Amino acid sequence: MALTPEQAAEIDRLRTETHATLRPTVPALEDLLFHPLPALDHGFVRVVDYMGDDGAIVQAARVSYGRGTKRVSEDRGLINYLIRHRHTTPFEMCEIKFHVKLPIFVARQWIRHRTANVNEYSARYSILDNEFYLPAPEHLAAQSDTNRQGRGAVLEGDEAQRVLDLLREDATRNYGHYLEMLNEGAEGKPADPARSGLARELARMNLTLNLYTQWYWKIDLHNLMHFVSLRADAHAQYEIRAYADVLLHVLERWVPITASACREHIVGGTRLSATGLKVVRRLIKGERVSQADSGLQPREWRELAALLGIDPA
Amino acid sequence: MALTPEQAAEIDRLRTETHATLRPTVPALEDLLFHPLPALDHGFVRVVDYMGDDGAIVQAARVSYGRGTKRVSEDRGLINYLIRHRHTTPFEMCEIKFHVKLPIFVARQWIRHRTANVNEYSARYSILDNEFYLPAPEHLAAQSDTNRQGRGAVLEGDEAQRVLDLLREDATRNYGHYLEMLNEGAEGKPADPARSGLARELARMNLTLNLYTQWYWKIDLHNLMHFVSLRADAHAQYEIRAYADVLLHVLERWVPITASACREHIVGGTRLSATGLKVVRRLIKGERVSQADSGLQPREWRELAALLGIDPA
Amino acid sequence: MALTPEQAAEIDRLRTETHATLRPTVPALEDLLFHPLPALDHGFVRVVDYMGDDGAIVQAARVSYGRGTKRVSEDRGLINYLIRHRHTTPFEMCEIKFHVKLPIFVARQWIRHRTANVNEYSARYSILDNEFYLPAPEHLAAQSDTNRQGRGAVLEGDEAQRVLDLLREDATRNYGHYLEMLNEGAEGKPADPARSGLARELARMNLTLNLYTQWYWKIDLHNLMHFVSLRADAHAQYEIRAYADVLLHVLERWVPITASACREHIVGGTRLSATGLKVVRRLIKGERVSQADSGLQPREWRELAALLGIDPA
Amino acid sequence: MALTPEQAAEIDRLRTETHATLRPTVPALEDLLFHPLPALDHGFVRVVDYMGDDGAIVQAARVSYGRGTKRVSEDRGLINYLIRHRHTTPFEMCEIKFHVKLPIFVARQWIRHRTANVNEYSARYSILDNEFYLPAPEHLAAQSDTNRQGRGAVLEGDEAQRVLDLLREDATRNYGHYLEMLNEGAEGKPADPARSGLARELARMNLTLNLYTQWYWKIDLHNLMHFVSLRADAHAQYEIRAYADVLLHVLERWVPITASACREHIVGGTRLSATGLKVVRRLIKGERVSQADSGLQPREWRELAALLGIDPA
Repeated sequence: MALTPEQAAEIDRLRTETHATLRPTVPALEDLLFHPLPALDHGFVRVVDYMGDDGAIVQAARVSYGRGTKRVSEDRGLINYLIRHRHTTPFEMCEIKFHVKLPIFVARQWIRHRTANVNEYSARYSILDNEFYLPAPEHLAAQSDTNRQGRGAVLEGDEAQRVLDLLREDATRNYGHYLEMLNEGAEGKPADPARSGLARELARMNLTLNLYTQWYWKIDLHNLMHFVSLRADAHAQYEIRAYADVLLHVLERWVPITASACREHIVGGTRLSATGLKVVRRLIKGERVSQADSGLQPREWRELAALLGIDPA
Repeated sequence: MALTPEQAAEIDRLRTETHATLRPTVPALEDLLFHPLPALDHGFVRVVDYMGDDGAIVQAARVSYGRGTKRVSEDRGLINYLIRHRHTTPFEMCEIKFHVKLPIFVARQWIRHRTANVNEYSARYSILDNEFYLPAPEHLAAQSDTNRQGRGAVLEGDEAQRVLDLLREDATRNYGHYLEMLNEGAEGKPADPARSGLARELARMNLTLNLYTQWYWKIDLHNLMHFVSLRADAHAQYEIRAYADVLLHVLERWVPITASACREHIVGGTRLSATGLKVVRRLIKGERVSQADSGLQPREWRELAALLGIDPA
Repeated sequence: MALTPEQAAEIDRLRTETHATLRPTVPALEDLLFHPLPALDHGFVRVVDYMGDDGAIVQAARVSYGRGTKRVSEDRGLINYLIRHRHTTPFEMCEIKFHVKLPIFVARQWIRHRTANVNEYSARYSILDNEFYLPAPEHLAAQSDTNRQGRGAVLEGDEAQRVLDLLREDATRNYGHYLEMLNEGAEGKPADPARSGLARELARMNLTLNLYTQWYWKIDLHNLMHFVSLRADAHAQYEIRAYADVLLHVLERWVPITASACREHIVGGTRLSATGLKVVRRLIKGERVSQADSGLQPREWRELAALLGIDPA
Repeated sequence: MALTPEQAAEIDRLRTETHATLRPTVPALEDLLFHPLPALDHGFVRVVDYMGDDGAIVQAARVSYGRGTKRVSEDRGLINYLIRHRHTTPFEMCEIKFHVKLPIFVARQWIRHRTANVNEYSARYSILDNEFYLPAPEHLAAQSDTNRQGRGAVLEGDEAQRVLDLLREDATRNYGHYLEMLNEGAEGKPADPARSGLARELARMNLTLNLYTQWYWKIDLHNLMHFVSLRADAHAQYEIRAYADVLLHVLERWVPITASACREHIVGGTRLSATGLKVVRRLIKGERVSQADSGLQPREWRELAALLGIDPA
């Protein structure tokens, strides 16, 4: 996450320019506006702009002329009610805009959330920086034995070292060849006058998926909570979870009442199937239930047992 | 557009609360924030919040750390370039939120624009006000003879009077029966203690389509320009055009450079078909072109002739 | 749901035209293709076209060259897994298209689901039919005392009769005035030659919200399940629930494995909050829990008690 | 585009299974159903399913009970009218589903079209094949001198050879290291029993952006035309244009009337700005117009001159 001195200076300068506005304003979020919040080894999340606050949700839900209710406790009650009953539209009335720096393979997962706006740094137009992601040793995990889509134990010793060496060497070499193929020198002159240089839109295909890209990303609060509930989840890949955790931190600064309801009902909540609910009702009555008479498949049974903190056997 | 004294007071109070922010701020838009801008006989558009300005479009297009370019002329050039080449995503990085009061039949056209966020005043939950739209005499038009979807000459004399009487009497009577069926008196007591009162979600079905409803509506700048280009168009129904004109006025206050490019390329621009372009090229060379040898159907030919200011004969 | 003889004949004719296709085909859905399935007093849902079946979900999830897995039990297992883990994109790979006739006030709720395609019958262009919704006596409910958004007991006796009379008379009168203002006679001639006739786009504003409209509506399977989970819910207004129930019936014919998983996990499932889950764990351990020590607000506590079938006191 | 014998056999088998259906069916599209249509060196587009035909657009526009109009010429007239007047919703009533194999850097451009459904082959779950894109010699272009986002002359001689060698060697080496890090042998055993093997979701980060991925992609006809109009355009990168050209070919087989209108009005048409239109009107009147008195910026002037086939000087 090394900003250049010029980039740091631009951010510092912007943070000195205070404006007067009639719009709802969140001081706790203003405090971290523009600052890069680190994620992974070279990535960051910067809050660039925002619209609305907890009160704006109440205001929209009531279609009111003024701001919200008179008391914070009323706002809290209404926001909890809206989230519990899946009245999602008032949360769409708040919006936030980020500048994110992230590895390309993370960007490819991230972009699958379609209800957001994106402007990515163009490698057709510009040259990408030489920054790529290398996992920290504690995240260099083996394939899981039980989950075809997950990680197992952390690699150790020679194998870990060999993996890191390969990742570093390949990314470095491929980036070097990228520059060589581009053949761009100082002041728009070719580096080697004997060569034309390959078009940027072609040369980029030699780069590796751990190279960092960056984009502006804007999303409404409802869809941000949905993103976070999927990507801060234990089933998400660690590398995108690292960003989702930063987004959760921002959420808490921005709309603390909503963030609390989100932790309670969305990120921290769970779903029960119709059969799972029947099992829970029987357990509460003191009945003994086994997988065989639960009506659940073995895998669902184990997941439910883990959720309820009971012995699956 | 009669605000109640309470509503006017709430707006006045909000306009006294100035906050400090680091976010991009548009003084010309702050000036009209919260004020109702009239549309039709009882409707309005209020700007409730906004995110971004002309500079924010440039900032997103460049994925930059600072604000935009150094000079307004550079911003103008880039914004024009983006619009001309249909690079629409940077315009999605600005967002605006309105409170709109509008007749139900207008709301039904408006809602067809799906890329926006809406919170409508709930007639399941609350009682609607007794306000309905009556066309001004100069908008009381006959069906067009030539366009199955348009208006012709203005009605006059007895026919005009009869239409206005019917519209007023039917809307008034139906609203009166709506209140009667609801049977809601003061302080949550029934008006007539002998009756239960019909559920609000049912009673509303007796209302007419010219009754006013209201909603919060939030949209990004790209989709706002698309909305305006379709609804400020001469083919749009007058009643929604009245609102699109207000939105255009807001657009000019908010993002003057973009609004200018929008007038030049989107609202004021036009499309030529492949065959239409061939006709134009021939005309510029000084050739005479008739419908018969234009390759265009009669209707397309007449439309093109009108566009180019030539004699279709 | 009175089809004209011409409409019935068109449907009959279409049902005689069998084509050969290599596409996945669902005989149980072909059986009801084009037929109007009744909803409310004059409404219907007709399946007009569909794409995909249960196997197509598996095929997309596997990005396979062939059709799906070899065995139905494998398909069932994968589909359940996908739904339980919110892998929603494979369900977006099936699509269905309906022709729906519905009251305008129902259409206004329905249209809030934005992730669908709609073509509505145009009252700017055409004249609407004289059909409006009147609740059956058993659905003529009073406002709920406890839920500001719900229904209470059914109205009876004189009050019920008076409500039905008002609804019928007002809708009938307003429709009559609509025709009078239009002044359209046979063969494009005015009914009264002395009058011009009001434009259709204006005359429609005199109609009541219980008048029937119709549209083509196309949606993917994921969003159809979401629609049904919200609108077949006990909190939804009865009049839209009547349609959601028909959609559920179609779902079962079309994709029986997915419909079963949908009943188990989406329509029939439930959500537990983080605190709700803690309460459940304590109850299963045999602890006594009261609202006071549950960490839940009174309303949430009552809802949880009802869900679990325990005494809230 | 080398299918394995198993993949080819699956496709052949599917093409023998004919079903009876009442749905609209397009024989010309059935002919190419499931067959891979080649794009670039190893990519393809396969039509997997479709919904609707030209008649279905007319049917939806009319919200009709039967199929469309009686005569093809009427359908053609209506479809042209709808496209010319931007009535886009009837085109959303047709849907098509593809299986596409494409380089990752192309997939990253493609996915920016959000109004579509995607299921991508998961490199968290499975191992990617060793297939990567190498440009044919005639597409190995230098960076454009005049357009920061385009290509110039084709590279030749040693420079071309060096570029191809680098691309091939780097992609091959990185893929080899990918397999080495995975350490997966036959029958779920490790290749080297002394090593654990890196998780698939991590190992993939070593791959280059020219590696092929594949996905199922489903889109409605309106959005497909929008995609094609942007990506078959001369400003689009050649590698995605190669796919857009295949999609255009499919479009012509599927909905020939619409495809013709699309070529005339969308792909082949153009836009004129308000000022550009004034210039055209003056030129048609026989006036001489220069950039200086055109009201256009030099770049816009040159673009307009090229469009109209006049001398910009």
